[in-house]
Order: sequence, then structure tokens, then C-alpha cells
Amino acid sequence: MSSAVSPLAPANVPDLPAIDGVRLATAQAGIRYKNRTDVLLAAFDKGTTVAGVLTRSKCPSAPVEWCRARLKGGKARALVVNSGNANAFTGKSGRAATALTAKIAAQALGCSVNDIFLASTGVIGEPLDATKFDGVLQTLADAAAPGQYFDAAKAIMTTDTFAKVATAQAKLGKATVTINGIAKGAGMIAPDMATMLSFVFTDAPIAAAALQKLLSEGVVDSFNAVTIDGDTSTSDTLLAFATGTAAGRGAPKIARATDPRLNAFRKALQIVLADLAEQVARDGEGARKLVEITVEGAVSKLSARRIAMSIANSPLVKTAIAGEDANWGRVVMAVGKAGEPANRDKLSIWFNGIRVAHKGARDPAYDEGEVSAAMKVPKIALKVGLGLGKGRDRVLTCDLTKEYVAINGDYRS
Amino acid sequence: MSSAVSPLAPANVPDLPAIDGVRLATAQAGIRYKNRTDVLLAAFDKGTTVAGVLTRSKCPSAPVEWCRARLKGGKARALVVNSGNANAFTGKSGRAATALTAKIAAQALGCSVNDIFLASTGVIGEPLDATKFDGVLQTLADAAAPGQYFDAAKAIMTTDTFAKVATAQAKLGKATVTINGIAKGAGMIAPDMATMLSFVFTDAPIAAAALQKLLSEGVVDSFNAVTIDGDTSTSDTLLAFATGTAAGRGAPKIARATDPRLNAFRKALQIVLADLAEQVARDGEGARKLVEITVEGAVSKLSARRIAMSIANSPLVKTAIAGEDANWGRVVMAVGKAGEPANRDKLSIWFNGIRVAHKGARDPAYDEGEVSAAMKVPKIALKVGLGLGKGRDRVLTCDLTKEYVAINGDYRS
Repeated sequence: MSSAVSPLAPANVPDLPAIDGVRLATAQAGIRYKNRTDVLLAAFDKGTTVAGVLTRSKCPSAPVEWCRARLKGGKARALVVNSGNANAFTGKSGRAATALTAKIAAQALGCSVNDIFLASTGVIGEPLDATKFDGVLQTLADAAAPGQYFDAAKAIMTTDTFAKVATAQAKLGKATVTINGIAKGAGMIAPDMATMLSFVFTDAPIAAAALQKLLSEGVVDSFNAVTIDGDTSTSDTLLAFATGTAAGRGAPKIARATDPRLNAFRKALQIVLADLAEQVARDGEGARKLVEITVEGAVSKLSARRIAMSIANSPLVKTAIAGEDANWGRVVMAVGKAGEPANRDKLSIWFNGIRVAHKGARDPAYDEGEVSAAMKVPKIALKVGLGLGKGRDRVLTCDLTKEYVAINGDYRS
Repeated sequence: MSSAVSPLAPANVPDLPAIDGVRLATAQAGIRYKNRTDVLLAAFDKGTTVAGVLTRSKCPSAPVEWCRARLKGGKARALVVNSGNANAFTGKSGRAATALTAKIAAQALGCSVNDIFLASTGVIGEPLDATKFDGVLQTLADAAAPGQYFDAAKAIMTTDTFAKVATAQAKLGKATVTINGIAKGAGMIAPDMATMLSFVFTDAPIAAAALQKLLSEGVVDSFNAVTIDGDTSTSDTLLAFATGTAAGRGAPKIARATDPRLNAFRKALQIVLADLAEQVARDGEGARKLVEITVEGAVSKLSARRIAMSIANSPLVKTAIAGEDANWGRVVMAVGKAGEPANRDKLSIWFNGIRVAHKGARDPAYDEGEVSAAMKVPKIALKVGLGLGKGRDRVLTCDLTKEYVAINGDYRS
């Protein structure tokens, strides 16, 4: 498995400020990896609300089922995340492991097990030995402190080559509130109304139901607009925690997602989610190119999304981009197989601003040398004009390289 | 591009007998390749019927559109196939190229242009210079002779590493009729009610409408049950030609597909189609393993098909198999993302007869050494039991290797 950092990693990593009411700590529990942290505890003040978007896989992991049941309560006191083992497809022992982990965490923090949220990532199908958390979680609860988001992001990595963090601030009433986010994910990435693992923390005082609406809206053009390999994880989990501590600094308590005072917060949340989602695409397993696919002129946004995803998941388009080949014929193929309205003779295609095909044929001004040169950069903007309507959408993916095959042909060994 | 023959190529290639009323010839027209044949002419006796199944891509090639319009007539006098250029997404010039090719062929054979069928395979989006057929098709028409099916199969190859032929015989009344088939395809393979390029020839006297029904039935569990990369070609074309010459030897003329005298023919046709489809999977670009995926216990055959295809198109399942890793966790993932009814806790999974997962967890008798040894063979039978109903289906695919990426990252250059 390659351990080199992706060449597409962001050049600058922001410092994430502390958020009142959130304390973090990480440790080495020895779940699978050696000499690295593999467990994260986030402890929250009383009154913290929670919202979440989870995988729609028909075979979800045990922690996903645990969170789905607890989200109804809308309250959270802690989040426990481990890497190295996904606790997915582990049967009764998987459910027992989530229950035991929550019990240990609840005892360490002196709260109800129903206020504990869990996520696990790593190998599927191997039993998770939750007794390894015994002792560790008490130590983490005692050590947990504000800040340390970058360490938290590092502890949840699997095949990721860099830790993913993002932050934004927004005015809520007269107070400034902060949104910090972390994420992991590099393969098995095709979120379906959900995401890989991502956790967002804020001090804004927002009721759980309102937070849920903001989050569900927020994933549409961020995590749900990313695909690396078309493979939807059994563990996709996005959770948002709002401690509400900004109320002490004058932020209004928000009960409804339609409250106009949320406008700046909503935008800031979108920025954080989109930033994390783009980092996931930038860390696609074996990726050497970040690919932004825009489809316009479709009959609807949904139709544009489906066509964009058909292109983004086409191995032939992705291998061509890996070979720096502006193979628009394969783009036509991927448009054609999407099953959405398309008229070959109205189709236009651009690579990095250069129109290579127009009205169903090679562009008259097509210049192979110019196009080839434009492909030798780390970010490829691929645009398709369907010429049918006003539907437009954008998704992110990466190229498909030999390294992807190498990483995934040898993951378990 | 690798030129080594796939290690999965069939050990024995059958000799295909001549079929009365079919004459074949191949030539080097210099479309794209050098020092190899790239054009095939099949000439048929008067009275030959034709049926076809074509890609459902919304952006089909010009020859696909040409054939779709001519199939309504049900009669054929010739088939012209070229490799090296797919004449797809070539706009007006593409339509002009098909018309010109048909005109040249019709003149050479002294028949109507509407009795000429065309197929092209190779690069998409490059104009096809049909003037290259001028002269060549007359030479081919003069030289065409019975037999030579293997040469015909060679002339239509692109990234194929071996020529694909199959043959079967069946009793029709008291006469023995022959079915010969050829196919090409190694990538961009996920036929959708159609196939890559495949041509089937028979001397059975079967009306076009009946032949069409047999062919449409026949693709369901053959070509439509194969995927290499989930990418549906713009050129998928399967055509069947029935010269009817066996009527001279006492075969009854068949008007309807429901005629019980067709039973043996129907089975023989199915054998030929399934044989060719398996050869396509065996020649998957970069393939080192043939993978047969069986899903049983689904709520319906269609549901089983969709789940089998979700597994067959998963890059993570395919790279694991390339790495000889029985990573059943990824199989669970692919079942879960298919969107079809599935219950994690009823799921069982077998690799080459060894049950690795049972009732939603690792099989109690799981032995990593035994399973690893079972993966070190060229054919992998992957079976999933859903435990929900009686729906069952089977599809073929291959593994995903670094060679696939190499072949497709450098195809145009």
C-alpha cells in the first residue's frame, strides 16, 4: 500500500480553533494498526444536539444501525470513532461490540448509552474486539481537551494519505459561531444520501431537527456529489454536533431550519462540507488527477447529476484521464449509457476549457497538441453540454490509476 | 498495449464448417492498423433473413442507426464490418460514411443498399474514411468463399487478444442445420439488450420475425449477462443471418418462434451465444481471472441479476480477486449498494465452493489458508445466497488488473 501523500493534497492546512463544549482526545488502542492512533473520543457538553446522514446500503455496519436508532433522540454527549475495523457484517458480535463500546464510553463520561454515537472504519467482516476500549476510553475522557482537530482527523484515517480538516465561521445573531469538520475516505466512495466518515462540530445553538435539515440539504452538492469508485460504503456516516455554547455569547437559539438568521451559518456549513468532500476526491486511492465534471443543458438537475455520475464512474473515462488523453469518445459513451435524455447531435464537450466536440462531432478547431498539453495538469475540468434544457450539476471524482488496483488488490494482506 | 494472448483463452478452437449461402472474405483496408486485416465482407444468398439486437445507448454509432433502420426489412445480402474506427459520434460525416460504404457494397454485390448491414469498431469520434472501401469491397465480393470464419473473427478484433468463434449443430425436421458465430470485445463491455460485435450465421430457414424472437431471448443469459467494466458501447451489435439453404435438404421453413420444431435449434443458438459471451469475458482487458457470479435466494431473477451486476461491476471486488483475496466484505458492500431487497443477517457467500460467510457473519469454519489456496486458480465461482426467495441468476465478469489501466490509459496514442 502506498504511503506517499497524494499529489493532490491541499497545499495549506487550516488551524482549527477550539469550539466551546467540544473536547477531543485520541489514543492507540491497537485495533489493527501499530504505532499510530486509531481511536477518537469527542466529548460534548450537556445540551449538545446531533443530526446525521447515514449510508443507504442495505447491508449497513453495526455502528450505522446504532447511530440511526440514537439520532431520533437528537442529543449527544460523546462520539467514539475507531479505525482499522469497520465492524460491518459482523452479525451478533457486531451488535454486541457497539453496545459494549457505548457502555464503556457512557461509564467514562457519566451519561446514558443513548447519548453515545459510534463510527468504525476499516476492514469489513472481521469481528471488532470492543474490550480493547476498556480503560482506553476512561483515559481519553480524562485527557479530552479543546482543539486537537488535526489529531482527531489523523486517528480516523485508513487508506487516506492526508488528514482532512475544514473550518468556517459565520455570524449568528451578533455572535460569531464556528464550524469545524473532519473526514476520512479514499476508496469505497460513492456516498448515497450520506458519506464516508465525517464529523462536524459547532457551538451554534441549533435544535436537532433544524440541524438535521441543514445537514441533509448540505450533503446534496458536497459529499453526495463525490465518487471515487462507485462503491458505496456500508459505513457511510456524517454526524453534526452543535454544543449550543455560543448562546452564552448572545447567539439566538434556533428551532427551525427556515429561520432567516441561519443564512450565514447555512453557507458556512456548506463551505465546510464541500471542502471536506473535495479533499476526499483529492485523496482518491491512487489518484493523480482531480476531475470536476459539469453537465449542463440537461432536462433537469437530477438528469444532469445522473449523467455526470455515469461519466465519473466510467473506468474508461477515468483511465483515459490517467493517461492524459482527452478521450471525449468515451465521454460520449458514458453519456449514452446513463439512460437519461441525450441527443448525440447536440452534444458538446470541453476539457479544461477547450471545446473538443461540438454538435455531435469533433470540433472543427480541434488541435490534438493543444488538447494534450491541457491534460498535463493536476486538475481536469470536464464539461458536457447537452443542449436540451437548463438542468445543470457538478460532481467530483479522480482518475483511475494502476496504483488504485495495487492498493485494493492487496488491502487485507 | 499488451499483445500477449489472455491466459484465459479457450484451450481448443473449434473448426467452423461452411454454411451454404454464406461466403466470407477479409482484407487490409488500412483503416487504422497496419499489417493486419481490418475489413470483413460476408455475402449472403438471396432469401437470407436477418435479426439483430443493438445497443440501447442514447448516443449510438452511425452503423447502429443504419442497421436499426434496415432490420425492419428482415432481409440481408451482405454484412460489412471494419475494425480500427467505430464511426461513432462522427455527426453528418458518419452518416455519409455508412451510406457510402453500403453503396459500394451494394454495387459490388448487385443488390439494394437496404440489404447491406454494417458494423464498425474501434476508436470513437474519429471520422471514418469510407473511400478506403472503394475497390476493396469489389475484390472481397469476388474472392468471398465458404468457410474462413476464423479469419473473419480475426479481422474484427480491436484490443481482443484472441479471435472468438463458436459453432453448434441442431436437427431441424430431419435435416441438420449449423450455427456459426464470431464475436469481438474486450473492453467497454456491459451490453444493454445488445452486445459488443457478434455475428451469427445459419443455414436454417427461419423467418426474420421468428429469428428476432430467438435472438432477443438468447441474449438475456449470454451477452447481457457479461460485464467487463460496466461501460456500455455505442456500437453494440449482434446480428443473426439465416440463409435458409437447409430447406433444400429438407429442413422445414419456420415462420414462428413458438414452433416446437425449433426446440433443438433454440438450444444450439443459446450454446453459441453463451460460448461467445464467455469468450468475451475471458478476453476482458488485462483479465487474469474469469469470474462467474451466481446470486440465489433473491426475490426475483431480475433482482438477482441486478445484485450480480452490482458485484460484477464493483472495482473493489474485482481488484480483490486480482489480488487473489477472497474479500467477502466487499461482496457485502456490493450487495448492499445494489438497492435490491437484501437482509444482511441472512447473507451467505461462497468462493469456489468454500462458504466464507454465513448468516451475516464470517463462517465459523472459515480457514484463511484454505480460502487463499482456492483463489489461486484462473476461474473464480463467487456465489451469494440471499435467503429471501427463489430468484437466481448468473453473470460473468473478470478481475480488474493494472494491465486494464495500462491498456486503457494509452489506447489512442
